[in-house]
Amino acid sequence: MLYDTIIIGTGPAGISAALTLKIHNKSLLLLGSKNLSEKITKAEKISNYPGFPSVTGEQLNAAFKAHLETMRIEITEKMATSVISMGGHYAVTAQTEFYETKTVIIAAGVTASSTVENEEKFLGKGVSYCATCDGGLYKNQKMAVICTNPRFTHEVEYLADLAETLYFFPAYKVSSDLSVSGNVKILNSFPVSAQGDKRLSEIVLKNEERLEVNALFCLRDCISPNTLLPELKMRDGHIVTDRSMKTNLKGCFACGDCTGRPYQYVKAAGEGNAAAHGVIEYLAACE
Amino acid sequence: MLYDTIIIGTGPAGISAALTLKIHNKSLLLLGSKNLSEKITKAEKISNYPGFPSVTGEQLNAAFKAHLETMRIEITEKMATSVISMGGHYAVTAQTEFYETKTVIIAAGVTASSTVENEEKFLGKGVSYCATCDGGLYKNQKMAVICTNPRFTHEVEYLADLAETLYFFPAYKVSSDLSVSGNVKILNSFPVSAQGDKRLSEIVLKNEERLEVNALFCLRDCISPNTLLPELKMRDGHIVTDRSMKTNLKGCFACGDCTGRPYQYVKAAGEGNAAAHGVIEYLAACE
Repeated sequence: MLYDTIIIGTGPAGISAALTLKIHNKSLLLLGSKNLSEKITKAEKISNYPGFPSVTGEQLNAAFKAHLETMRIEITEKMATSVISMGGHYAVTAQTEFYETKTVIIAAGVTASSTVENEEKFLGKGVSYCATCDGGLYKNQKMAVICTNPRFTHEVEYLADLAETLYFFPAYKVSSDLSVSGNVKILNSFPVSAQGDKRLSEIVLKNEERLEVNALFCLRDCISPNTLLPELKMRDGHIVTDRSMKTNLKGCFACGDCTGRPYQYVKAAGEGNAAAHGVIEYLAACE
Repeated sequence: MLYDTIIIGTGPAGISAALTLKIHNKSLLLLGSKNLSEKITKAEKISNYPGFPSVTGEQLNAAFKAHLETMRIEITEKMATSVISMGGHYAVTAQTEFYETKTVIIAAGVTASSTVENEEKFLGKGVSYCATCDGGLYKNQKMAVICTNPRFTHEVEYLADLAETLYFFPAYKVSSDLSVSGNVKILNSFPVSAQGDKRLSEIVLKNEERLEVNALFCLRDCISPNTLLPELKMRDGHIVTDRSMKTNLKGCFACGDCTGRPYQYVKAAGEGNAAAHGVIEYLAACE
């Protein structure tokens, strides 16, 4: 199946784009989390999303969920790991799945956690963003895993089953199950650099400790856009778009926090709407 | 008083800007209608304002009103008639009032009704946007008035009291009171052109009828932005802005429909938020 559009991200930008595209009867795949946006749910109070006087993030997120349900928009709970331009259309891989689409809307937010030095250099050479895809390659070897969200716990568990030793770096308080597993080591520091010759061979921690590893898995809520799609024009860590949310790549649009500040829910939702209209125009011009 | 900002327009863009600026403790004047947006209230159904699954325009407008009330943001029910750059700050006239401000946010929507040929040429020379300001100048003379919204009825009545003859061109079904007034004539056509030598002397109707008049009052929901502020850079009838909603004039921002398509509520609200952040940054840089 060739989708009209694939939307990467289920924050306000992605949701807003999905609503408008659905109304316009476009076939769409919405990749993200069924809980929509981790960031919103953590917001204590939101006072400037017009129409919702002083809500909690949890409440606004619930309103977004209800809206998607009313419109029968489903979320495919997979994380996009790469977008490849096929000259005229795009291929999107999301963990073990592969999809094709006429257009892409990147609404992937901004990575709160900083990346590890040389992470991109060793991507596919020891560094991976998908445990279930690449874990098997390092069976009975030493692995490290950075994890920013408990919803990836099953991926960490999968790695723990495979690894000889698994160095586990959670960005949150960890559940007891994993910490008692014999081959899982939770250390009181965090990876800051990846080292090696042609392939990754060790990681350096913030406390300057060095650990020999064959693989480093980075399980984050979002992947930086130019890791997803290296040809994307970026500036100061954000995707460059024009006022209609077009990127430098034909058929590829971006919206929300990944396009720049202010990092605000309604700004993101507004851009999602504009990106959807950009897609609609683009598809009309292609027909 | 020198305001931090004056927001012109009470649609979703203006409201959104006001909410964010209020949270940031900026002094603001919000010029528009206490009923907020005529356009929204007329919308039968809105399905793509994220968080409100399938609402009527009336309901969304009510939610916006409630939000402003919660935040104690007041609306000054006056229509901006001109914005003048004072080199460093702005002066805004709204009917008979005069305000000064460090920044301006134009969120005035798009004019649905087309303007009359030569309207700008004769502005201040027979053409006026404010009955209560200029009506007295044409006492016992022949006047014409174009009116797009019944909320300006009191202005039309004011003119009827003054005029020898008042040609009345309402863009809506008119109440009986005015149509029975002896000196008020409602004609079955609409002005398309203003004519005269140095001053307005006659108007031409769509049916090619010509009427001798001394004044033409245009009472519309919004004034075209470059009539408001002639130095504004426009393209295809829209204000040109960058991604942060800056116009070509320092300290002047624009958002919502007046900046271009798509004419969508959430796009407008998102831009209002971005414009507010633009103002906040601008004010910080000036301090």
